[in-house]
Amino acid sequence: MPGLRSVTMGAWVGVGSRDETDGHFGSTHFLEHLLFKGTTRRTAMDIAEAFDAVGGEANASTGKEHTCYYARVLDTDLPMAVDVISDMVTSARLEEGELETERGVILEELAMNDDDPSDVAHEEFTAAVLGKHPLGRPIGGTPETIKAVPRDAVWEHYRWHYRPETLVVAAAGGVSHEELVDQVSTALTIGGWSLDEAVAPRERRSGEASSDGVPSVGVSLTIHRPVEQANIVIGSTGLAATDERRFALSVLNAVLGGGMSSRLFQEIREKRGLAYTTYSFASGHGGLGTFGLYAGCAPARVDQVTELLIEELERLASDGITSTELDRSIGQLAGGLVLGLEDSGSRMSRLGKAELVYGELLSVAESLELIRSVTVADVQDLAVELAGRPRSLVRVGPFGD
Amino acid sequence: MPGLRSVTMGAWVGVGSRDETDGHFGSTHFLEHLLFKGTTRRTAMDIAEAFDAVGGEANASTGKEHTCYYARVLDTDLPMAVDVISDMVTSARLEEGELETERGVILEELAMNDDDPSDVAHEEFTAAVLGKHPLGRPIGGTPETIKAVPRDAVWEHYRWHYRPETLVVAAAGGVSHEELVDQVSTALTIGGWSLDEAVAPRERRSGEASSDGVPSVGVSLTIHRPVEQANIVIGSTGLAATDERRFALSVLNAVLGGGMSSRLFQEIREKRGLAYTTYSFASGHGGLGTFGLYAGCAPARVDQVTELLIEELERLASDGITSTELDRSIGQLAGGLVLGLEDSGSRMSRLGKAELVYGELLSVAESLELIRSVTVADVQDLAVELAGRPRSLVRVGPFGD
Repeated sequence: MPGLRSVTMGAWVGVGSRDETDGHFGSTHFLEHLLFKGTTRRTAMDIAEAFDAVGGEANASTGKEHTCYYARVLDTDLPMAVDVISDMVTSARLEEGELETERGVILEELAMNDDDPSDVAHEEFTAAVLGKHPLGRPIGGTPETIKAVPRDAVWEHYRWHYRPETLVVAAAGGVSHEELVDQVSTALTIGGWSLDEAVAPRERRSGEASSDGVPSVGVSLTIHRPVEQANIVIGSTGLAATDERRFALSVLNAVLGGGMSSRLFQEIREKRGLAYTTYSFASGHGGLGTFGLYAGCAPARVDQVTELLIEELERLASDGITSTELDRSIGQLAGGLVLGLEDSGSRMSRLGKAELVYGELLSVAESLELIRSVTVADVQDLAVELAGRPRSLVRVGPFGD
Repeated sequence: MPGLRSVTMGAWVGVGSRDETDGHFGSTHFLEHLLFKGTTRRTAMDIAEAFDAVGGEANASTGKEHTCYYARVLDTDLPMAVDVISDMVTSARLEEGELETERGVILEELAMNDDDPSDVAHEEFTAAVLGKHPLGRPIGGTPETIKAVPRDAVWEHYRWHYRPETLVVAAAGGVSHEELVDQVSTALTIGGWSLDEAVAPRERRSGEASSDGVPSVGVSLTIHRPVEQANIVIGSTGLAATDERRFALSVLNAVLGGGMSSRLFQEIREKRGLAYTTYSFASGHGGLGTFGLYAGCAPARVDQVTELLIEELERLASDGITSTELDRSIGQLAGGLVLGLEDSGSRMSRLGKAELVYGELLSVAESLELIRSVTVADVQDLAVELAGRPRSLVRVGPFGD
């Protein structure tokens, strides 16, 4: 990215909460924390100081199918960032004492999330729609599984999943590809990873199409929290990340609940003043996805707003979208795509996911063409399918026990 | 910013919650919402569609001393953004029906904020430290003031404060200064603002040095919320935005609670595992500021964590910082400053605030020099002063009524 002084680099490990087996629930996220707690060459403080001293940001995120360790630094600090992050990925110690201390930190993180009622609504929605499928579990585990998980399980998880065949390194910004390849190769070799043999990447998630455990009926769930607002999430399964209808889904989502001019925003917020926040969302994984609608409203209005959400979903299926809406949402997605390319962080993510999820990087022109090829009929067909699927409803708010 | 396709432009109006008088509390934020609800030339839907159709983002934020309407769009869409935002600033209708609907939206926004216990802790902390001073009030008003405020009051507030002498327009990205000046002049003139006469900018906030209403003693407050975590905020008044010691405060803040290597993060999270989130913060306004420490922890640990926070503040005053800490935090601030210049949004904010708050724009080199000139003694002197001020403590969590 000519002109940028920053680089964002990310080490993507192809392991997420989906890959956890019994006795390991929450291990992936636990591991993410522990990688910052020290390696054979560095203490936790060494890692923290390395990035703070140069004003860089280093962080990590755990998903259902991947874990990403990333840093945004000035170009001159990239060798340091590559060295430290590679060290964490290859040579974490998972020292017993540090692990016990970090268990407390993670329990506080879970408690913080549990204090966010919209977070709770989304977690419970995913669990309702995906049921016992491994994608249905909360990414961070639960207080019970975190309290129970022993170091051995985390260590086993680390040794099994953190290997050359699951790692993708992506970077964007003021960076040269050749120099980065050299830096990464050197750093991983120092960490004891042998890269000179032909390592076949592990099979991509797109191969995992089993929907075992996904319930065939919807669930309706009311969860009591003594708060001011009711948080409503309603929806169903959606599309897999690689589904070719994902561009139609993007258009559908933009029209239904993707901006200030979207139907949900207009009907629920602008016309009726019933909510401050309302939107629709879609999340795609290997073989499976979720699709839903959200609103936060006064508890006394929860039935009215739930009905409005359902009405908008069903109206999309029965009446489709207008060509004006199609054009506007294509403009929205195209503009957003181009605007999203200027930041080294989002560009790095785009690269990492392209490699990890799709195995190919669409050019901007190709992506724009796929967005522009979506038709009114594609969107309605998809709406009919989604509106016909088993639908779950989760409401979190002051509804008593 | 050569190479960027995006532009972020912001219209900064020099009015915030601080300027509200009795009967107008919450009007500034109410007004911010209403500007999106239609002008003499545009409906709310016209405004929403204009930005959505090009994939732009348009939003606004209300602060204690300013209100900013901003848009991030592709360079070719800048004339549209300038036209729409200028129209909103000059020619909002504040139509009665729209106002009543929006009252409901704002009440939901307040309810959402009230459901965030860390938000509540910060609001109550500011109120505790600044007391009856106009900066102590919550920006959005309260449900009571929002329910009570009549259209006349909002209209009066609008007519009084939205005028040439309070407006600053800033933009950054793929933009030419001369073209922008032309576009803004044309758009404001269409909106009926006469710009050909010599308009003197309204006096800057730095002139407002009165601390009337700020309590001379600290307050200790426990607020019951039936949540999982205790949220602790502790601190005092801080520095005014224009105080020349603000660079020393930045260093102090970085050392105390500004990153993974900071004292709070190390002592409370890394060594003891007592919190997931802990940091220190400083907020500067015209004539006054606040300074505080935050942690979220298990309710059973609230006394222990409160003590640790106080200990770290007092240790900073009694023992100062090391030269290693000074160097690291200077590196952190300098790197962060340069990294923060790449994004058109943060660059636009820097420009807008420079004009509105300081009346001058420091070059990056000048800012770096001021950061690098901070000494260990400057930081300790400041710590002694801050630690000696009346201290307030707010705790929000499951503590019963």
